[in-house]
Order: sequence, then C-alpha cells, then structure tokens
Amino acid sequence: MNNGFKISSETRGKSIRCRAAVCRQPGEPLVIEEIEVDPPKIGEVRIKILCTSLCHSDVTVWNMRQGLFSFPIIFGHEAVGIVESVGEEVEEVKEGEMVLPVFQSNCKECKECKNGRTNKCSVFGGKTGMGLGMPRDGTSRFKDLNGQPLNHFLYVSSFSEYTVVDVHNLVPINPKLPIDKAPLFGCGVPTGIGAAWNVADVDEGSTVAIFGLGTVGLAVAEGSKRRKASKIIGIDLNPNKFEIAKKFGVTDFINPATCGDKAIHEVIKEETDGGADYCFECIGLASLMEEAIKSTKEGWGKAVILGVEKDGAAFKVNSFEIINGITITGALFGGLKPKSDVPMLINKYLHKELNLDELISHEVEFEDINKAFDLLLSGKSLRCLIWIDHGFQPYITS
Amino acid sequence: MNNGFKISSETRGKSIRCRAAVCRQPGEPLVIEEIEVDPPKIGEVRIKILCTSLCHSDVTVWNMRQGLFSFPIIFGHEAVGIVESVGEEVEEVKEGEMVLPVFQSNCKECKECKNGRTNKCSVFGGKTGMGLGMPRDGTSRFKDLNGQPLNHFLYVSSFSEYTVVDVHNLVPINPKLPIDKAPLFGCGVPTGIGAAWNVADVDEGSTVAIFGLGTVGLAVAEGSKRRKASKIIGIDLNPNKFEIAKKFGVTDFINPATCGDKAIHEVIKEETDGGADYCFECIGLASLMEEAIKSTKEGWGKAVILGVEKDGAAFKVNSFEIINGITITGALFGGLKPKSDVPMLINKYLHKELNLDELISHEVEFEDINKAFDLLLSGKSLRCLIWIDHGFQPYITS
Repeated sequence: MNNGFKISSETRGKSIRCRAAVCRQPGEPLVIEEIEVDPPKIGEVRIKILCTSLCHSDVTVWNMRQGLFSFPIIFGHEAVGIVESVGEEVEEVKEGEMVLPVFQSNCKECKECKNGRTNKCSVFGGKTGMGLGMPRDGTSRFKDLNGQPLNHFLYVSSFSEYTVVDVHNLVPINPKLPIDKAPLFGCGVPTGIGAAWNVADVDEGSTVAIFGLGTVGLAVAEGSKRRKASKIIGIDLNPNKFEIAKKFGVTDFINPATCGDKAIHEVIKEETDGGADYCFECIGLASLMEEAIKSTKEGWGKAVILGVEKDGAAFKVNSFEIINGITITGALFGGLKPKSDVPMLINKYLHKELNLDELISHEVEFEDINKAFDLLLSGKSLRCLIWIDHGFQPYITS
Repeated sequence: MNNGFKISSETRGKSIRCRAAVCRQPGEPLVIEEIEVDPPKIGEVRIKILCTSLCHSDVTVWNMRQGLFSFPIIFGHEAVGIVESVGEEVEEVKEGEMVLPVFQSNCKECKECKNGRTNKCSVFGGKTGMGLGMPRDGTSRFKDLNGQPLNHFLYVSSFSEYTVVDVHNLVPINPKLPIDKAPLFGCGVPTGIGAAWNVADVDEGSTVAIFGLGTVGLAVAEGSKRRKASKIIGIDLNPNKFEIAKKFGVTDFINPATCGDKAIHEVIKEETDGGADYCFECIGLASLMEEAIKSTKEGWGKAVILGVEKDGAAFKVNSFEIINGITITGALFGGLKPKSDVPMLINKYLHKELNLDELISHEVEFEDINKAFDLLLSGKSLRCLIWIDHGFQPYITS
C-alpha cells in the first residue's frame, strides 16, 4: 500500500508559523491566531492537519471551569493529517504519510500493549492524554507570538494547521479512506464500535439500550446491529434523532420527557423482559449512569459507561443490584488498541461493513470553528467536520 | 452411589411436632420452641436437619430493624439433612437421601438454568429466597403451638429439627461427605470459591485483594490459591485472622487500623504495581466496596462485590474510574448452579483439592445456638456448627 503524499520539505527542522484556534479561557469562543509550532523532538512527529471534527469531550473540557486542564489550550482530538517531518528515532512513519493522531497511546512494546486484556498502554505511565505538554518531556511544542506556551490537549491538539504528536499516538492509515470521513476514526467511532464489540461483546439476539444518540451512541448502535442484536432501544430527549438513529439500527425509541410518571429504567424493563442485556451510557451524566445500571438485566447484563461526567461526579449503586448479577464496566477508546484496531475498522468501513457516513452531519471552514461548538451545544449536529486545509490536493508520490 | 439412609416412615403425610429456634423480634435471642411442621406439598421435600451453621446473612437480617423480612421467623440456610418425606411430583430425591438445602433455586429446566451465563434460575420469577413462605404458593409450613404461622428464611430455615424446602432448592449429595463439613457447601464456600473461579475468573500469577477474612473471604483465598494467584492480600481489622488466613493462601495482610494516614487502596496500590487484578468485598459495607473499587487495577481489574449491605446502602463510583477500564461485578452463590456445581465442589473437597476443614472453627449444640451468634458477632468464629441431632446414626440401608 502506497501511503505517500507529496509534501514540502522546506519546513523540516524549523519552527512553523501557522494558524491555530486558541482557547484562552474556559467557555470563551476560540480565536484563530498565528502561532509557532516547534519541530518534533525524539519520538515525535509533526503533522499537517487536513481536517478535524468536534467531539463532546472537547466541549466538556472547554466548559469546565475548574478541571484537570489549564488554559490557553489548543483543543481538538479527532483529525487526519499528513506527516510533515519526524523527530529522531521515528521509524514507523515517514514524511508524506497519511496519519490519524489518537489520544490513546499504543507503543506496541509494553506488557499491556502485548497482552490482549487491555488497551491501556503503559508507555507514558498509563496516563491517557491528560498532560498539557508532550508525553515524553511534558513541554509544549506550541507558543503564541508573544512566546507564551500554549497547552496541548489529549496529546493531539488538532485545531491547528500543524501539530506535534508522539509516534505512540498516531496510526498510519490507508490513503483510500476519504479525508472527510477519517476524523471519525480518531475517537467517536472506535469508542462506540469498540464498546459494542469489545467491552460489552454484544451477542446475536440480545437487547441493547443506548442512552444518548450522539456519534458515540450511534456507533454503539451500528456495532450492535452488526452483531445482530434483536432490539436496540435509543434514549434521547431529542425526538428528531430517531429517524437518523434508525439508519444505525435503533429499533425503538424512548424520549424521557414523555415517560410520564415512569422512570426510564421502568420503561426499558417493560420493553425487554426485565432489563436490557447491554446498556450503554453515552452522555456523561451520573443520573443517567444510574438509570443505565437499573435498566440492565439481572443475572448477566452489562452496563457500559462511556460518557465522561464533566465534574467526575460519582454515580451510586445499590449493592443488591450488583450481587444480583449485574456488571458495570467501561473503557476509553472502546477498549481498542489504536495501531491494530483502527486499521481494522477502516478496512471494514471501506468494504461497506460499517455504515458511518451520516455521522458527519455538518461541515464548516476553519474560520467558522465556533459554529461547530454552537451546533453541538444546540443538539443539531452529530459530528461537524472542520476543514483546516480544504484546498489540499492529495497527490500520491508514486 | 448409594445415598440412602434408614429413616422412619411413620411421620409421612402428617404434621411433625419438633423443636425449632424461633426469632420473634429483630435482635432478640432465638428461643427453642416446639413447633408444627406441615407435610410437603407438590414439589416440596421435608428434611430432617442434622446440623447447620451460622452465616453472616442470618445475623445481618436478625439485626435488621426494618427490612425485607418479617418476624417471627426461623433462620438458618447452611445445613445438611436427610429426606424425611416428599410431596407429589417429586422424583429427584427419595426418603432417606442426604441433601443440602440451598437458597439459590435451580430448576434445571428454565432458559436461565439451561444456558451458561447465569445461575439466576427464573422458575420462581427470579426471586432468590426472599419470600417468607414456600416459593410456589407463598405460604408457610411452620406454625407455633398457638397456630401462628412462622416465616421461612431464604427458602431454607434450617434452625429446626425439620424443615420443608422446594425440590428446586436442594441438592442430593454424596453421603461420603462428613456431616459436620456439609453445611459449608450451602452458602459460604460456593459463594467464595465461585467468586474466585467463576465471577472473577482469577488467573495464574495475578494479584488478589480480599476485604474481610471470614468464611467467604477465606474461601475466595482458597479458590485464588488453587488458581495460582501470585499474591493474595487479606484485609481485616482482626490481626488474629492472619495465621489462619495463611493456610488458605493469603500471603500478605493489611490491618486498616494500622495504615496510618494512608487509605487502604493506597497501600494496596503500592503493594501491587498500581492495583490488584481482582478485589473482593466480603463484608457488606459500602465504604469498603468503594475501597475495593479504588484498589482495582485500571485497564482490566475486577472488583467483585459479595457482601450484602444490610441497609442496601449505595456505594459511589467515580465515572473516571470505570472508563479507565475497571469492572464491577458480583453474584449470589458465586454465580454457581447448585445442582451441578455443589457436587463438583464436594468432589474436589473429597479428593483433597480444596482445603476447607478449618472454616469450621466452633461447634455448639442446638440448645446453645445463641452462643453461635455471640461468637460470630465478636469476630471469634468463622463458621460455628450447630448440631441439631448430634446423636444421629447414619445407617446406609444397602
């Protein structure tokens, strides 16, 4: 497979001045600024971003008044780009290759990467993109024109014309993948499909309940449909989502606003012989995590937590529920290993074994990135694609 | 295998007047009274109890001021006995057979009994011994000499010379099993061994943390040792338990009272490379369930809840803990199916593949049953055996 794009080598080894969408305060609109992007250090790769998409986790942290992250920061963690240059000791990718940056590290060498039971690579001490700098030395490759460092986000920071990521945080991908679909494979799709296939291991004929029909929830539905679940219940406050959700396999719909006196879990129990085999929380609200757990079939059911509570708020579990045979579990990135599993997902997509196109509901140019936030916050968009370089001509060198 | 004991047939079809330890008010000492035990109805079996043991769940409910149970009640659910007579349609056992009554139903015919993923038999609507009467018709087979019905407990009620249980709630057992060890197989041992082998599926070389070194906790240790866990940490406030715990495979001991400023989970994380692979809560305290969850290795670890919080109090979980790859799970009766798995455990015990003898730490005669409560409440006993008929001569008929 040829994965080489023609790219200028003039910038190699030098700082690049380019545009980035910088967020200087929580909740404030991003501002497109000129910034400086340092060359990659040992084990790092500088990437020219072609397009990116907005995930709820960007918005969650953007809105987080006091959190694990500090400002100014460059958000964005679903993207596709071309390798502009590589640091020392990088052998896995070359200039011109199409790559997907990923927040989930995957060194392929540590004990965890080598065994099958987790995707929690331990190369960077098991941290998953929480650092504000690069994973190896903790420093930033970004600074503004006043020389102030700008924080990285989830080891990706794709809301920039150029970014630097560690080689353990990128996946070389098949250049046949359309650029405008590629960002989906950076977070939302592996999270949802992986949750259905890997974390829950949905089986044929089973019943599924999905709390939240955003991109992750719909990817869970698509994964469950491909596993031949017999009933897939979607729960969302927005009834407009039902039509699109049907295309991803959702068979039944519950709008919590119209449940009357009944709790959601009571409705689900009625519709599923006492509880769904697999319940997925894809929003990030402790109260819905509790509903998902209560909706799970006693004896063997699994409640899978995918949403991130923005305050890390705790959910409560009655111990009787657990000893009656319920399992609560969860994972980042769908429990998938990026370097092996993302190419597998892309391959299935290219062979039409996964239906994902409609997860991109909107597109904006880089200058209009704040519109993407508005669309997501108003519940109008699934994934909104943000074109960083809409004019890029992919020219394969040979 | 001959499983026939000689037993009088004079009582067949009639009420039996016999002695039982009746509890008339929560927290009050039991009183040995004369009671009437009705003959078994359809699908039921009347059993002459030989000996029984006291489990923490008996004490928990005995102490429960307002709960799911009401008084007067006959406690006891770990016992062995001889079939005195059978009701209509009972073909599985005959008079004179040695049987183990069990709170966990197992009809062998329902969808759940036939598939492998749960032990939650649905024959009685999935209820597990919560009824105060017999499972089929909800009525009691016990009454006092004033004619007042006495409640059943967990479908067993073994603190009586005779009891009636449903055929789906008993297991015919190998009469070679010593009578004074048999009650262990009615609750504590399957709960603990099943948790290690079936619920957690402890694997060779793994690390295990056990909160509470009572009978269930020590059975978890024994099961983990047989699976060749590399480190088994016991957590208990009573340092006297360490010596006995060593015999069941516990390799390290944490006394929470001597942890200083550190939380238990901080000590466990230091001793286990960031968390134990399998953590078992065997006490029934929400605060310890939370410690067990925090002590679990991110990425793949399992926290197994076995203790029953007497108030059904909720434990809290931070959603970040779950999405970092922790699983919380639990089961009743170790997730084991009584009719097939209890004989398997007994067989392993008889072949010295399970070390259980020392779980019986004390013995008392029936008249002294309240001493068994004192011993358990003061933390002095593991299982205290209560002899209902110490003079019984097991005479195999042929």
